[in-house]
Amino acid sequence: MSGPVLKIKIQIYCGEEIAMGPGKADLLDAIASEGSISAAGRKLKMSYRRCWMLVDVMNRCWVQPLVITSSEGARLTEFGGTILARYRAMQAAASGVADAAHWPDLAAALRLEPLAAQGEETAR
Amino acid sequence: MSGPVLKIKIQIYCGEEIAMGPGKADLLDAIASEGSISAAGRKLKMSYRRCWMLVDVMNRCWVQPLVITSSEGARLTEFGGTILARYRAMQAAASGVADAAHWPDLAAALRLEPLAAQGEETAR
Repeated sequence: MSGPVLKIKIQIYCGEEIAMGPGKADLLDAIASEGSISAAGRKLKMSYRRCWMLVDVMNRCWVQPLVITSSEGARLTEFGGTILARYRAMQAAASGVADAAHWPDLAAALRLEPLAAQGEETAR
Repeated sequence: MSGPVLKIKIQIYCGEEIAMGPGKADLLDAIASEGSISAAGRKLKMSYRRCWMLVDVMNRCWVQPLVITSSEGARLTEFGGTILARYRAMQAAASGVADAAHWPDLAAALRLEPLAAQGEETAR
């Protein structure tokens, strides 16, 4: 990665758990396209156990399950699809306004690469 | 922390370094109010070394220094104040649009607390 990059990370908390965030949204997309938690894990290079736990957290945080599993595999519920679409729309809206209104001035004030680190100082 | 909470984290990368993010912005605020890196560190419960390194990264990423130090302490440059204000404005704009346009529907679909975790399944 080189040059100025703007990253906007949106996390939705339910109590102490993260009900939705960038990684969980990507997992939902992968489950929708791959049709199982294990295939989604292979696509995202995450363990089945890790994917299963992320799905479990989501299903415990929202008022309805986002993913249902069966002997056939896994799929998003209609509710899950709606939540994912709303999260993606929120990401796009937040990124859009940040990009349009503020990013050009900030990006123009950044170096293409950081200066090299010097030794530590004792200045305060 | 209880109930639905929306967190939006904006990070600005310069090459592999994070030129600005929530922690660095808070550090700039603390340096501005406290007048030294060490006092800012005490306020934020971070070590002097950690604070110094964050300032060093910022000063290496932007085209001008954000913080200057002297025997008197440390202060934000005019440039540093401008960058901080623009970052805060970008945070506010992104949060505002996310909050207004998308958060109410998502928050209404969250439980107040997650359901308790069950044992792991083998379902897929």
